[in-house]
Amino acid sequence: MSKILVFGHQNPDSDAIGSAVAFAYLAKEAYGLETEAAALGAPNEETAFVLDYFGVPAPQVIASAKAAGAQQVILTDHNEFQQSVADIKDVDVIGVVDHHRVANFETANPLFMRLEPVGSASSIVYRMFKENQVAVPKAIAGLLLSGLISDTLLLKSPTTHTSDKAVAEELAELAGVDLEEYGLAMLKAGTDLSSKSAAELIAIDAKSFTLNGNQVRVAQVNTVDIAEVLDRQKEIEQAIQETNAANGYSDFVLMITDIINSNSEILALGSHMDKVEAAFNFKLENHHAFLAGAVSRKKQVIPQLTASFGG
Amino acid sequence: MSKILVFGHQNPDSDAIGSAVAFAYLAKEAYGLETEAAALGAPNEETAFVLDYFGVPAPQVIASAKAAGAQQVILTDHNEFQQSVADIKDVDVIGVVDHHRVANFETANPLFMRLEPVGSASSIVYRMFKENQVAVPKAIAGLLLSGLISDTLLLKSPTTHTSDKAVAEELAELAGVDLEEYGLAMLKAGTDLSSKSAAELIAIDAKSFTLNGNQVRVAQVNTVDIAEVLDRQKEIEQAIQETNAANGYSDFVLMITDIINSNSEILALGSHMDKVEAAFNFKLENHHAFLAGAVSRKKQVIPQLTASFGG
Repeated sequence: MSKILVFGHQNPDSDAIGSAVAFAYLAKEAYGLETEAAALGAPNEETAFVLDYFGVPAPQVIASAKAAGAQQVILTDHNEFQQSVADIKDVDVIGVVDHHRVANFETANPLFMRLEPVGSASSIVYRMFKENQVAVPKAIAGLLLSGLISDTLLLKSPTTHTSDKAVAEELAELAGVDLEEYGLAMLKAGTDLSSKSAAELIAIDAKSFTLNGNQVRVAQVNTVDIAEVLDRQKEIEQAIQETNAANGYSDFVLMITDIINSNSEILALGSHMDKVEAAFNFKLENHHAFLAGAVSRKKQVIPQLTASFGG
Repeated sequence: MSKILVFGHQNPDSDAIGSAVAFAYLAKEAYGLETEAAALGAPNEETAFVLDYFGVPAPQVIASAKAAGAQQVILTDHNEFQQSVADIKDVDVIGVVDHHRVANFETANPLFMRLEPVGSASSIVYRMFKENQVAVPKAIAGLLLSGLISDTLLLKSPTTHTSDKAVAEELAELAGVDLEEYGLAMLKAGTDLSSKSAAELIAIDAKSFTLNGNQVRVAQVNTVDIAEVLDRQKEIEQAIQETNAANGYSDFVLMITDIINSNSEILALGSHMDKVEAAFNFKLENHHAFLAGAVSRKKQVIPQLTASFGG
């Protein structure tokens, strides 16, 4: 049997990489599968901090599953094909561990699929370690904890599930870190955007969604100071216009999220700004507007855009 | 909170009804959900035998989830929308327990989804009882056992998973029946086709599949004597032609499955008989041909048709 690649979504974040590395380990231990973790991009600043902190090498970056020698793959932290590896339709998806909605996903054969509406894919992988009575190594616990902290902004996002708090505490214990202290340090590591070009900044955590036939790109960056990001508005808008033109995105919505106060500034450019304004019941001024209390793309942005764009 | 309906696929079989009734019970006990079991059709002869044997009333038959008072639903033993309730797109799918491939399935929000490539949805529901440490009542064990026996033809189908044998033995113990004896009696109860019109016969266990843009209907009937069913070939073909015309099916493939010897006769009518012949590498004579060893639509018919119809 050839190897099975396990990977999260494009533009990987700490949950995509943490859940993939941890699940690849679990699948070997619990099910005897020949799994290997991979990633669909290099770690971002936050994830680089995490991997360095727990002494875990970054997983191999792949552009094609087949070119990387795999006919079978397991997806973590995503299921929509447009967020997956380029040749996803040419390989067999034999498993999925995810916490997103299901869309644009299809298989020819029955598979293992484990989805829960919880704060992170890492939360689910941790639960599966427990169900299979596999001990969680310290570094793996660190990665899973980081995935959960990253996706829930330290359990503050409305995507946080009631079960996630206990998961975070257990994982912090196993990883040997203080939850609050480590969590804030990790999130702050992801907010250093100074070394990024505008094109890099809008690609750090960007996902495409098909809304009523339109390709809408929704990106998010974390910061401790929204104004600092807006200082670069001109070059960011330039980068957005370039990526919209190059990739055929009808619209680009950038969430600039204040991780300390749990708010976001929305910067948006494209053909349907009326729909973006209607989605959030605000007026864009100079292409941006404040969205109080919004930190979750999944719960506070995508459903609103989906409804506003119509079907 | 309003009630949540739990139901299996159209043309319900023993696994669709058993898994729905059992999961509705489990979700109440384990998660405190206000669930109610339902079915998308009346029980077939086999399932009627099962319900009668264990003294369980048939679940309510619904044609619309909303008309039945539910905004939220949980699907068991299926996920493809064309196999589900008519208004599936107008309600929220909050959970799925299934053992089929995923296709034509999409949600607006994250959900609970538990798929495993095992012999029956009932096998998975039983595993979830154990994980949640909920005792399985005798009648529920009987329904789950029947779902597994029905879908695997008493563990003989290639869809049987290595874990299913132990599941069957544990459930037989809990249900207080002898596995072989009960299993054969139950399967035989489903083979009495004499009271069925030809139109009813081809609808007992029929599912639609979209193959390269064609609506292909694939039905299965169990028998202890293939010749006895073929004696009715003329009226069956008449019924198939009528249903193809009425529903726009391009093709109809009927598996007449010998449950004693584990073989099937394929009777097929429609516009792509060349593709059906290529799928199984046989020649249809007088519209039918023998398929040795084939008992599973899911493993031995659908993938072959999908490949042959192309994409």
